Amino acid sequence: MARATRPIPELYEAARAGERRALGRLLTKVERGGAEADQISELAHPDAGNAHIVGITGAPGAGKSTLVSRLVTDLVAAGRRPAVLAVDPSSPLTGGAILGDRIRIDEGNDPGEGRRSFIRSMATRGHSGGLALAVPLAVRLFDAVGYDPVIIETVGVGQVEVDVVGAADTAVVVMTPGMGDAVQANKAGLLEVADLFVVNKADRPGADDVRRDLSLMLDLSHMTGQESDTGYRPPIVMASALNGDGHGDVWTAVDAHLAHLDDTDTRSARRRHRIRTEVRARLLQAMSDAADHEMSSPSGTEWLSKAERAEIAPTHATDQLLEQLLQPTEETS
Amino acid sequence: MARATRPIPELYEAARAGERRALGRLLTKVERGGAEADQISELAHPDAGNAHIVGITGAPGAGKSTLVSRLVTDLVAAGRRPAVLAVDPSSPLTGGAILGDRIRIDEGNDPGEGRRSFIRSMATRGHSGGLALAVPLAVRLFDAVGYDPVIIETVGVGQVEVDVVGAADTAVVVMTPGMGDAVQANKAGLLEVADLFVVNKADRPGADDVRRDLSLMLDLSHMTGQESDTGYRPPIVMASALNGDGHGDVWTAVDAHLAHLDDTDTRSARRRHRIRTEVRARLLQAMSDAADHEMSSPSGTEWLSKAERAEIAPTHATDQLLEQLLQPTEETS
Repeated sequence: MARATRPIPELYEAARAGERRALGRLLTKVERGGAEADQISELAHPDAGNAHIVGITGAPGAGKSTLVSRLVTDLVAAGRRPAVLAVDPSSPLTGGAILGDRIRIDEGNDPGEGRRSFIRSMATRGHSGGLALAVPLAVRLFDAVGYDPVIIETVGVGQVEVDVVGAADTAVVVMTPGMGDAVQANKAGLLEVADLFVVNKADRPGADDVRRDLSLMLDLSHMTGQESDTGYRPPIVMASALNGDGHGDVWTAVDAHLAHLDDTDTRSARRRHRIRTEVRARLLQAMSDAADHEMSSPSGTEWLSKAERAEIAPTHATDQLLEQLLQPTEETS
Repeated sequence: MARATRPIPELYEAARAGERRALGRLLTKVERGGAEADQISELAHPDAGNAHIVGITGAPGAGKSTLVSRLVTDLVAAGRRPAVLAVDPSSPLTGGAILGDRIRIDEGNDPGEGRRSFIRSMATRGHSGGLALAVPLAVRLFDAVGYDPVIIETVGVGQVEVDVVGAADTAVVVMTPGMGDAVQANKAGLLEVADLFVVNKADRPGADDVRRDLSLMLDLSHMTGQESDTGYRPPIVMASALNGDGHGDVWTAVDAHLAHLDDTDTRSARRRHRIRTEVRARLLQAMSDAADHEMSSPSGTEWLSKAERAEIAPTHATDQLLEQLLQPTEETS
């Protein structure tokens, strides 16, 4: 097919004009990474910056997908064009099933006037470095072709996922009744990035305990969100996505947080933090590649062998490798 | 107290002579990182290399601590000197309780002839980079002062923890009856590093299902452990640490794996992999520090600002920063 060979700028213009297939192709290239992904990012960068970027995370089984589906339906009904990037740290064993569910949700959405939402699963396949690079690009692409809000849904386990959600305009952490959930979230560093908590499955026993625990942790730990200096305290919203309760309140709170960012002129700070996080991820990936390359070089292999034979300490091997890798630091004289 | 100011080489010799307090002080310095930690590593490196290093991981609540306590008691009874490094990604909220339990176990151990085991919790406090650096040093120190085996116990959630356990001589993954456990382990990359599976709480319903799932995943995915090329297939041991069943079988299987490494001359490959993992973690930490430094420099700040204002793409900002950071690659001409 001739369409398969359309150049990237043409695909990008088609996606801007609303062609879903073109957007899907671009997202696949973004997921794959490399030079084509970079080219897409560069094309999209000047057109992006309008969407409200919302990160939603929580433990597996917290009901994030159901909640997000409800939110998407509401947003479409309100005339908006939401995109969802479901970051899915799945094995091939489960990835298929999750993706299948998502596609059904997406297809069922607003069949009359054409689908206004776009839902995309992005699998990491154990390659979290790739995730840190691909997510900001996918978000930028959705933003640039006109989706708003862009919702990033992750499973809040790893540092990368926390970073991704923490770099959103609004970070939502979903909890459920169950022992230790607030503690787990705290461990993962989620309390520090949360702008809004949702206690989902709020009809279950223990929901009030979760709310109380969260409230206590917010009190005690002075973890009052990224905007604590502006007097913002992350609200706790009770919901039951499965029963259809509370999702309206969730989005009201999300909107209120955006209004707070605008009122306090702190939205640009989020944008700065997001760019910084993206550039840092790219730097670390490039440096990690350089480190692997150096470790496999003849001289690198020799230093590692010396350390293995206990002729030199691993600290010394590291210093030798670093000398080959890094530019000398320019000290202020 | 004069003892508090003993220089590191003196503390190290005291620890070699069996002084527990000196070892504890050194471990605190190792945990803290920096120049003193490096000095300890360099002192210990020539004396290390004798201990059997065993990594034990599994989800929270899998009963790892109870299992490890049983193993330690058995090992002491058999005349060995086990050390345990319990890597504990805890918040201050739970860290205390876990540490308290450990100390009780340690104190209760073999009071007659002086304690032969040493149990140490190492908290990460959300700083997983520090963990990747500190664990190999603590293991080396235990090894160098005469503990054998050295057991590293981690909660198998993050890549760092998987790396740590995967760099042991023998990697043990503890599972329990409960939906999705095998799938979760697979996601985390644990199946690929496991040399031995323990199905703990094997008296509970579903234990046979876990064994069957694991066995099937091993069959299907050709995930037959790091030694698959030597015909080794990770055994699955059923245990109930709380009831005191099966922990003898666990250690028998651990010993059998060590014998397999020796028989196939692959123990040195594990050692190589371990040194490589350690050096790589140190390289990445140093490079990450350099990246943060460069991003905060006047020129780095300027490039980031340009990207924030959408004057240049984040890819371009990254390239500019990398040029300041990395040595030019020497291409083969």
